[in-house]
Amino acid sequence: MLHCEILSTGDEVLTGMIADTNAAFLADQMGSLGFEVLRHTTVGDDRAILEETFRTLGARADVVLCTGGLGPTVDDLTTEVAAGILGVGMKLDEAALAYMEGLWKNRGRVMPENNRKQAMLPEPADVLTNPIGTAPGFSVKIGKAHFFFMPGVPREMKKMFAEQVIPRLQKLRSEPTVFDVRVYRSFGLTESAADQALSNIEALFPGVKLGFRAHFPEIQIKLTVKGPEINAARESLEAAADEVKKRIGPHIFSDGDSIEAVIGAALRRDKATVSTAESCTGGMIAQLITSVPGASEYFDRGFVTYTAAAKHDLVGVPEALIAEFGVVSEECARAMAEGAKAASKSTYAISVTGVAGPGGGTDDKPVGLVYIGLAGPKDTVVRRINWPGQREQIRGIASMVGLDLLRRALQGLEPLAPEWIQRRAK
Amino acid sequence: MLHCEILSTGDEVLTGMIADTNAAFLADQMGSLGFEVLRHTTVGDDRAILEETFRTLGARADVVLCTGGLGPTVDDLTTEVAAGILGVGMKLDEAALAYMEGLWKNRGRVMPENNRKQAMLPEPADVLTNPIGTAPGFSVKIGKAHFFFMPGVPREMKKMFAEQVIPRLQKLRSEPTVFDVRVYRSFGLTESAADQALSNIEALFPGVKLGFRAHFPEIQIKLTVKGPEINAARESLEAAADEVKKRIGPHIFSDGDSIEAVIGAALRRDKATVSTAESCTGGMIAQLITSVPGASEYFDRGFVTYTAAAKHDLVGVPEALIAEFGVVSEECARAMAEGAKAASKSTYAISVTGVAGPGGGTDDKPVGLVYIGLAGPKDTVVRRINWPGQREQIRGIASMVGLDLLRRALQGLEPLAPEWIQRRAK
Repeated sequence: MLHCEILSTGDEVLTGMIADTNAAFLADQMGSLGFEVLRHTTVGDDRAILEETFRTLGARADVVLCTGGLGPTVDDLTTEVAAGILGVGMKLDEAALAYMEGLWKNRGRVMPENNRKQAMLPEPADVLTNPIGTAPGFSVKIGKAHFFFMPGVPREMKKMFAEQVIPRLQKLRSEPTVFDVRVYRSFGLTESAADQALSNIEALFPGVKLGFRAHFPEIQIKLTVKGPEINAARESLEAAADEVKKRIGPHIFSDGDSIEAVIGAALRRDKATVSTAESCTGGMIAQLITSVPGASEYFDRGFVTYTAAAKHDLVGVPEALIAEFGVVSEECARAMAEGAKAASKSTYAISVTGVAGPGGGTDDKPVGLVYIGLAGPKDTVVRRINWPGQREQIRGIASMVGLDLLRRALQGLEPLAPEWIQRRAK
Repeated sequence: MLHCEILSTGDEVLTGMIADTNAAFLADQMGSLGFEVLRHTTVGDDRAILEETFRTLGARADVVLCTGGLGPTVDDLTTEVAAGILGVGMKLDEAALAYMEGLWKNRGRVMPENNRKQAMLPEPADVLTNPIGTAPGFSVKIGKAHFFFMPGVPREMKKMFAEQVIPRLQKLRSEPTVFDVRVYRSFGLTESAADQALSNIEALFPGVKLGFRAHFPEIQIKLTVKGPEINAARESLEAAADEVKKRIGPHIFSDGDSIEAVIGAALRRDKATVSTAESCTGGMIAQLITSVPGASEYFDRGFVTYTAAAKHDLVGVPEALIAEFGVVSEECARAMAEGAKAASKSTYAISVTGVAGPGGGTDDKPVGLVYIGLAGPKDTVVRRINWPGQREQIRGIASMVGLDLLRRALQGLEPLAPEWIQRRAK
């Protein structure tokens, strides 16, 4: 097994000005590729510490993925320090320079002189081209470790890692190990209920590893398989995936797409439309639906009905109903969904009304009590949650329940069971 | 200067299942307290690697802030490994146990037996009590370094760091150094324009350090001061802060609060209200406004008018106007803002209409072209942006422009200059 480490450089990361998302991304990717990462290290733009760190990692690791320090300013020391340790010179990489100048030219601008620095690489080095940014990366061997130096800008690093680094990593494996992974995104089961439902998957499908990841408000289920032979590995992954879908299928909304994208595709397929009437979520559901490009095909309008008057004026909730049951009620959620559907002539309408807190709760209607409705072509369903959490969590889970009610309706499934939501209410 | 390092432990962080926000938080806090952090390290729940790492850090650092590994499961090895290195035993901390049992009892439950493990601490150790979680932390000296072991749960770690660790860190300083910090949140200047406007602040106010942080779409300006004497340090920070406000004051919206909270307070003060009519932002502005508790005092309703028909039906944009100018136009943004204000009888109304992409752009109206309007008691202002970015960025900055137009109006300032937005449009 190759000993892999991740090294993030830069004062901005070291001082906490920005969170280091690169390390988490690379660690996750490496895990999915079947490599074992043993350590992450973060250091600043400091010559002595960089040099010591390169030497230490070079002595103990086989592979080091390093991000940052390739920019044009005096703070960017990575290339210089690497060349210094290796005792080699730096050379202007003509191809990299020409490419960078071309990028600037395409933007109608002249490349600033100090950007030439980014085309100076140790000689010799294996150049990692950067198809979207300005600075190329490079790979050299320091001690016994293959170092892959990539930019700190996440978008550039990700593309370089996928296109340039992964193929080189595959060649470094001592024995060819194939690896495959499937991630299911689900909503409707707690992590422990999912765990229970799938407890013997690893025993039934040898070689398959099962993992869970709570990514509020969804639960992700990850199946990985490793082996010497690609077809056998894929077959056992497929078999395990089929079993997972058989057991908890209705709760799985995708193997990649967001729930709003899944809903969008299904609405488009059915030539159906959706509208919204939101109280405590205040536009969050509409915002999620319209985060999908092309949503105007199935989303025409939404109502943010924050007060009782707005619920009456915009989606026709009867004043008598509000007087009798209050705005935080199953009756009001039902009337809002049906009213939004009628007012916008949509096929479906999602409604939300509740107490997001932190103030405004009563013994009777505590903070976290939210009613979520879905009016459809045939009937209207209302679900109640009582989520003991903070305002943004309550709004987030209420939005998810609304989107998931629609997702299940579009997929011909039963709505989320009321018991589930009652159970979470404890 | 004390040599400080941060150590994150746990397989979830090492494998990238969760991003390590603890390290960034602690690094930022340490910087604000005047301590210098030289390195972050992340390792998994592995006995040998934990032991090696504790020994290495103990040999080179003075202070190590360590998070994670204090939980009740067999994976949680921190306490055991620390005691092993020190060659001391573990002892049940009766006070910690009683406290934990009390917390469980308050929730009406019995503490599971394996949670007792969390009250087992090296003997002797300096106990760091945990007022909100279950596990106490502890501090011991390994090699020459003071290790502070804290839980991995961010909420618990933050409270323990503030209440238990900071006072102990202050005592470790060789000379008393006072430290003060001020962060201004701004919108309306680019980072380089802010840099230019404030270039000589450090020279004018010796001891004051100026920093910038781009937190899209806002720019944060950070002033820090360090010195032996608190009153002198504060005075020079105040003087520098006054100069910063004099130079770029209108762009600063707060020294802490979000822009939606600032707007909320100003609307409440003026007994004024706001409504929204959103096209490409699809509810994002309403969602931000209602993210502030108590927003119902000044926000009654919002319209998500995603199509031309919705703009006509809900906020009365004349069909002839749409036919003449199109929905992506200054005229339409103006009519939407004025229509929303009239339909909701609010004091102000924010409108947004544009092309968020990635599809739907034309040569004439490219992706990123967005018109943002604000109708107020006296008049209506419309600003145009042409932001070359991704869908969520375009929606984000358009929302921010809308909120900032309202913020400036409420503060009696001129609206954001059109030139600024044109300049960003290149």
